[in-house]
Amino acid sequence: MNTASWSTTPNELALVTRVVLNAWEGEVARITKLLGGLTDEQLLSETAPNRNRGTYLIGHLIAVTDAMQPLLNLGNKLYPALEVTFLTNPDNPASSVPSVTELRSLWTEVHQLVTDKFKKVTPEEWLARHTAVSAEDFAKEPHRNKLNVLISRTNHMSYHRGQLAYLTKK
Amino acid sequence: MNTASWSTTPNELALVTRVVLNAWEGEVARITKLLGGLTDEQLLSETAPNRNRGTYLIGHLIAVTDAMQPLLNLGNKLYPALEVTFLTNPDNPASSVPSVTELRSLWTEVHQLVTDKFKKVTPEEWLARHTAVSAEDFAKEPHRNKLNVLISRTNHMSYHRGQLAYLTKK
Repeated sequence: MNTASWSTTPNELALVTRVVLNAWEGEVARITKLLGGLTDEQLLSETAPNRNRGTYLIGHLIAVTDAMQPLLNLGNKLYPALEVTFLTNPDNPASSVPSVTELRSLWTEVHQLVTDKFKKVTPEEWLARHTAVSAEDFAKEPHRNKLNVLISRTNHMSYHRGQLAYLTKK
Repeated sequence: MNTASWSTTPNELALVTRVVLNAWEGEVARITKLLGGLTDEQLLSETAPNRNRGTYLIGHLIAVTDAMQPLLNLGNKLYPALEVTFLTNPDNPASSVPSVTELRSLWTEVHQLVTDKFKKVTPEEWLARHTAVSAEDFAKEPHRNKLNVLISRTNHMSYHRGQLAYLTKK
């Protein structure tokens, strides 16, 4: 690769989208590892006094990742019912939510499925518009593409990982 | 832009690097806004029981951003002394650290300066190696480029923003 030249090759675009996807995979791996080190009791605890419990944050992240499927035109959500519990409503210990065991299983299933789909998206497709922006708006704002969504969601995951880290013993 | 074609134009690479830089700027803006809404007293508080204080996390983020200058070959650090306090050592209420007023000022100064430098980096330069990887290793691992550092540091900032958010009143 000749980085001194201004001409861009398909390989360069492929490299950049690979770097962004690596960041996503790295973030998923870090939370997976964090989850593996936490007991069910820790996950059911608040991340800080009067703040979201670990279970809520994990459910929230699963719901957000699942919702990336329709947003990126990669299919329907696997678990649309998660939206009400983990996106529309705040954490509520009295509400009926999946068990910790179920959440651990859903975390793995949804992230494996969605990441596998991401790996099949071509570099050019990452630059296409996502389904929440109209063709008309996209013509004026081409940065509102699928890659932008992937970058935003990776950051969102890091944000909550910072909070989930507070469940670990000091 | 013809996203159906496989040929990559310079504009496409420019678009992608712009999207990554937008994510960085957005993250800096969100923390700047968060800081503006926190009192000095809140910033001097622990983000959760026995966890880093707000001041430590802000100093830590300033030091990490400042260190991006030599890493991305954009000049020397402005405040090398921050490294010992906010990178080498953990939070210590007994150690001598900048005041909250100084930290607020350093936050703005360092992030404005570094972000202005980022804006002058060309798309091709973002794909070049950073200074912590050898030319030999980079030839084998071209994803270890400057853009990768920018993406990682943006995620790192989100991680700590999730913790800083716990300083806000509920």
